[in-house]
Amino acid sequence: MSNPAMIQNQQGTLPDAIADIAGVNSFRDALVEAGLLISTGVRGLFGRSGQFERVVEALDALITRLGADQQAEVLRFPPAMSRPEFEHSEYLKGFPQLAGTVHSFCGGEQEHQRVLQCLDSGEDWTEHQKPTYVVLTPAACYPVYPVVAQRGPLPEQGRIVDVFSYCFRHEPSLDPTRMQLFRMREYIRLGTPDQIMAFRSEWIERGTRMIDLLELPNSIDLANDPFFGRGGKIVARSQREQNLKFELLIPIESPEKPTACLSFNYHMDHFGLLWGIKTHDAEVAHTGCVGFGLERLTLGLFKHHGFDIDTWPKTVRDALWDHA
Amino acid sequence: MSNPAMIQNQQGTLPDAIADIAGVNSFRDALVEAGLLISTGVRGLFGRSGQFERVVEALDALITRLGADQQAEVLRFPPAMSRPEFEHSEYLKGFPQLAGTVHSFCGGEQEHQRVLQCLDSGEDWTEHQKPTYVVLTPAACYPVYPVVAQRGPLPEQGRIVDVFSYCFRHEPSLDPTRMQLFRMREYIRLGTPDQIMAFRSEWIERGTRMIDLLELPNSIDLANDPFFGRGGKIVARSQREQNLKFELLIPIESPEKPTACLSFNYHMDHFGLLWGIKTHDAEVAHTGCVGFGLERLTLGLFKHHGFDIDTWPKTVRDALWDHA
Repeated sequence: MSNPAMIQNQQGTLPDAIADIAGVNSFRDALVEAGLLISTGVRGLFGRSGQFERVVEALDALITRLGADQQAEVLRFPPAMSRPEFEHSEYLKGFPQLAGTVHSFCGGEQEHQRVLQCLDSGEDWTEHQKPTYVVLTPAACYPVYPVVAQRGPLPEQGRIVDVFSYCFRHEPSLDPTRMQLFRMREYIRLGTPDQIMAFRSEWIERGTRMIDLLELPNSIDLANDPFFGRGGKIVARSQREQNLKFELLIPIESPEKPTACLSFNYHMDHFGLLWGIKTHDAEVAHTGCVGFGLERLTLGLFKHHGFDIDTWPKTVRDALWDHA
Repeated sequence: MSNPAMIQNQQGTLPDAIADIAGVNSFRDALVEAGLLISTGVRGLFGRSGQFERVVEALDALITRLGADQQAEVLRFPPAMSRPEFEHSEYLKGFPQLAGTVHSFCGGEQEHQRVLQCLDSGEDWTEHQKPTYVVLTPAACYPVYPVVAQRGPLPEQGRIVDVFSYCFRHEPSLDPTRMQLFRMREYIRLGTPDQIMAFRSEWIERGTRMIDLLELPNSIDLANDPFFGRGGKIVARSQREQNLKFELLIPIESPEKPTACLSFNYHMDHFGLLWGIKTHDAEVAHTGCVGFGLERLTLGLFKHHGFDIDTWPKTVRDALWDHA
């Protein structure tokens, strides 16, 4: 911790660390050294090698096979959502520090000259960047609720939606399992409280079976989201007391603090009320989801089975690639 | 054009149109009606159906097969890149209006309260959003040059890199082929001028063959990038005079103005000089790339072969799915 760049960052002079190399993390360094992750110089922002992507794609396909009986509707959204919908989602109440708004240059030729002068002299050039109507997606399920709401009441059996997207969270970190941009696959359940609870129990079981199949040590634990500020502590405690969030944890970055790789969430009527989603009998719909962190799962596999996929246990490779 | 929301937008009161429905575009409306695209209310920002994604994935796989002999290194980057690298890339010289910088809330509890008050009262809440070290990727090849530069001189045969990413361009439009967030697959060639020119000729031929295989009307034309401002007109003219950019055009949105779906670019020594990329004999490397616009190609297929994939010509379906 005596590195000056680290200290500067902790004091807040640099909101992110530009110099990723300023901090030490042996797992991350080994991944970069092996070429599986490519450093961009910004904490939590990495390129991926072809081998890394091969694993991500296989995990994605495995999750598809695990959910084949769910009759889920496949919807895919870009890594950003509508700002008006984002504002309506109340994400800023709970997690203002994590969101990423997209801003663009809206000036003319004169302002453009000023931008270029600032860039040349190393001054701040972002003065003319104005917020657009686009915000980075904070969790893969966020764009889904307004879409489902527009379709009118849910059918009697409710709905299951399958989403997959890059998500953004502004939490620059040395820990490679805590990326600023990462992919999340989700099944979202919309229906009655009973339907959501049954879905969640089922997926806690399936998720555990999936990770057992991949021969990764794991445990299920009660959890809470990282709500902002002092008020957030109370919300987090209430979330735990109501058993709303469970996580499947895998030791990756540290054995003491295992990493949440899957999460099983019951939102109660939060999104149903917010978006006016109704069940077939005109009650407020409840929702829940299971989320898979694809980078985290991939890192878990490299951590526990080694950096060379060809030397992974045959059973694990079969689960991922040889499932014919 | 007498729609008041459209006029308001043209006058610049709304930098994007919030209300997507305020403008009329029959192809887009038909795609949304058929459920292939999902409106988010923001122009150029859409969800995609499972059927739409099936086509995107098949095109991506077809491009992989077409390039199987290229011995390309697969690199994958998230939809955003490092701000210092972005600033160094000179993108802001040419296209300041298209870039998207990512901003985050960096205040404390008091500022958070203010954000929530502004949201409640409909005021601008973005005052405390500060630029992060992350900028949305403007073209899939941008994160690659600094990575290759770090590895030292190119081997004698140069390099080919295979990338694929969501890209952002701030150009809200009613035209569904002009999205703000879209996917671009690219092969990037780095080497001597002769190597780049040979690569580009080869890919103009392969690209044409690919689109013929998909039975889409197409033509190759000289093109230029949309450089900003009056000075940009001169740069664009020079780009055309030097034959640096060709595009494969497919009529989609309008027969008169066909849409660029592939582009074939020769950057000369621009990126080589900028990033200090050298050939094996210590010359400044030249670079070029072929880019495939996956949403545009998908829209071209739906436009020309209809919205129901099962009724597409068997030859086209075989090219995409039955290539065993």
